[in-house]
Amino acid sequence: MISSKPVRGTRDILPDEMRIRDRLEQKILEIYRVHGFSRIETPVMENLELLLGSEGGENLKMLFTVLKRGEKLELTKDATTLDLCDMGLRFDLTLPLSRFYSNNQSMLESPFKAIQIGNVFRAERPQKGRFRSFKQCDIDIIGDPSINAEIELMDTTAKALIAMGFKGFTIKVNHRQLLSAVIKKAGFSAESIGTVCISLDKIDKVGTDGVTQELLEKGFGQEQVQSLMSCVASINLENLGQWVEDTESIEELTRVINSMKTLSKDQFEIVFDFSLIRGMGYYTGLIFEVSYGPYGYSIAGGGRYDNMIGKYNKVSVPAVGFSIGFERIISILLEEEKDAVQVDKAVILFYEPQHDSIPEVIAAADVWRGKGYRVNLVAMKKKFGKQITAWDNGNYQGFVVFGRDQEIKTF
Amino acid sequence: MISSKPVRGTRDILPDEMRIRDRLEQKILEIYRVHGFSRIETPVMENLELLLGSEGGENLKMLFTVLKRGEKLELTKDATTLDLCDMGLRFDLTLPLSRFYSNNQSMLESPFKAIQIGNVFRAERPQKGRFRSFKQCDIDIIGDPSINAEIELMDTTAKALIAMGFKGFTIKVNHRQLLSAVIKKAGFSAESIGTVCISLDKIDKVGTDGVTQELLEKGFGQEQVQSLMSCVASINLENLGQWVEDTESIEELTRVINSMKTLSKDQFEIVFDFSLIRGMGYYTGLIFEVSYGPYGYSIAGGGRYDNMIGKYNKVSVPAVGFSIGFERIISILLEEEKDAVQVDKAVILFYEPQHDSIPEVIAAADVWRGKGYRVNLVAMKKKFGKQITAWDNGNYQGFVVFGRDQEIKTF
Repeated sequence: MISSKPVRGTRDILPDEMRIRDRLEQKILEIYRVHGFSRIETPVMENLELLLGSEGGENLKMLFTVLKRGEKLELTKDATTLDLCDMGLRFDLTLPLSRFYSNNQSMLESPFKAIQIGNVFRAERPQKGRFRSFKQCDIDIIGDPSINAEIELMDTTAKALIAMGFKGFTIKVNHRQLLSAVIKKAGFSAESIGTVCISLDKIDKVGTDGVTQELLEKGFGQEQVQSLMSCVASINLENLGQWVEDTESIEELTRVINSMKTLSKDQFEIVFDFSLIRGMGYYTGLIFEVSYGPYGYSIAGGGRYDNMIGKYNKVSVPAVGFSIGFERIISILLEEEKDAVQVDKAVILFYEPQHDSIPEVIAAADVWRGKGYRVNLVAMKKKFGKQITAWDNGNYQGFVVFGRDQEIKTF
Repeated sequence: MISSKPVRGTRDILPDEMRIRDRLEQKILEIYRVHGFSRIETPVMENLELLLGSEGGENLKMLFTVLKRGEKLELTKDATTLDLCDMGLRFDLTLPLSRFYSNNQSMLESPFKAIQIGNVFRAERPQKGRFRSFKQCDIDIIGDPSINAEIELMDTTAKALIAMGFKGFTIKVNHRQLLSAVIKKAGFSAESIGTVCISLDKIDKVGTDGVTQELLEKGFGQEQVQSLMSCVASINLENLGQWVEDTESIEELTRVINSMKTLSKDQFEIVFDFSLIRGMGYYTGLIFEVSYGPYGYSIAGGGRYDNMIGKYNKVSVPAVGFSIGFERIISILLEEEKDAVQVDKAVILFYEPQHDSIPEVIAAADVWRGKGYRVNLVAMKKKFGKQITAWDNGNYQGFVVFGRDQEIKTF
């Protein structure tokens, strides 16, 4: 007998959860649309060269690649993934969007405000709550170089989160250029910014001491490292000017934070967090992440990536995006029972299996459907009492027996 | 510069089409749900052994397979796909559903009425209107051995098609057991039924003569072939009994057709079509397909597959399914403009980019949103007249300038 388990790191979604997921997805989509965004869709497969040529950071190590077809493979010992495969499954929705924009730019509004809701794939080590196929809900604004785009994205995403019941979350904001400026000011070279960021990113997990030690182990000088870590410890929105001369980044950061404070109406927090890094190499400006309650992971994240579209396009186009991690939202909602399974108006219409006119049974069901009920037709079994008990699963108000009941009987 | 085209045989979906797709998908989902079906979801990747072990017919030749990860590949000349890959992309939704049912049976209603809406993947030779990634909308009833299940599926699918504007379609029905009985009666062995069916399936393309010739070329005797082809030419619902003794199949077929005639209320046709084969090896009883207008392809299809779930399950469970080909529906709707792009209530709110309080602009937009408008915030350009003209794209009723207009101006 063949195993009936889904592939490692993935899962089947059952009807009760699916109902909640569909309702939430509709709610998010509706809020995004009301805010002027339009949904698009790209294939889950992309050319492998495109994926590998991106600055996807750690995600490139977690690619699922698709075997070439239609040509004889050169199966030698030294064959690389690119020899064997020509496509891969997308690891995010940002890279496909950049390709999409370049491919279809002449047919799109400008600035273009995109909605993408779809699954992405990463060969993560399977663990509780982390899957190899998971849904993301992204909005992006392409073609607006100003921070108004960031504010619009944050405002729209915050409204979606609030509509789903997530009050009191925190939007953390940082700025990649500011981060680079501080690292350089501390005495690091431009080339080492990437590796310094990788260490800084671990501050939540290993603490300041852990990061200090890692930087020293990477061979950086005591002085540089101490200068950087003292900055990390004390930098804040008010004293930013002491650490960097980049007044433009400071003003952008300050304006975004102040605007969002005005818009929040105390329903969420917005804070400057200098230890926020975000893994992707492609971010160029403001970066942001949403944390909520005691959960040790972000429920949404994004940033500005002004240089990505230029890789596929004659002209470089500014872009910024914000992504909601749908699986995390769902798992919190299920855990906190914020959105408990709402029972639809639904009934079961039982009928005698010997009944020789199923069209009459269907016609009777349609009458109930006309009254706004979901109707499930079920053939009666001999042990009807036992059968009724089995159907009392919380999904139905009650039942009707064809040709016998005029009213709904409760279980 | 990296190519911005999507991978061969796939495509990007633009906002106008996406809006129609989303609306149709919601409509189909709602009708399915009202008829007692519940949505589930499975991953797009399945274990390769599961896919290869299925009776997927021609589809197995069109599998996309995913390279193994986490182990050193044995790259020798004789390496097979199974040596290199351990997963594949699903080619339909029926096989994943069977696995799903076996994996989750204890948590599902019985009979279980499933909705699946999702993409499937087949490495078809790319051609107009045929894609390598396409959406299907399936309903299946698992656990009902009676033809009431077929009738429910046909009734529900027909209602969905009618709701989308497809009146006057034809449901063609055949019965696999009847087909086998006729082929055997004509003098063919039980083992040759499969290959005979492959030839019969081409009758639409190559005609009766072409099929006759192909069967003769396959080495079958003149007499058998003529006997079979004369049956194909003259068999109908009334004279079925002359050709086969299988009274049970005849009765099933007749009852389904008569029931659907009653339910059709002249909105569609239901006919017996002995040349209907359907490629999948897994069908065991009634098979059906929907044709519409002058289009040379079916827009929906399905059948009974009573033996599939038994491959993953201790106990065999009867099952039957009906799948709507979403891409075909969409392409007909776009061609016939049945569901022309309905313009939402939408406006553009233009604002001065120098305006230093974007929260005020957002607050003004929210007032319009409160009145039921989609509002797109757009920064004004110097050449505002030209900009307005560019935004007159049919998606907006008009526009408002922040701080200036109280009413919507039309383009």
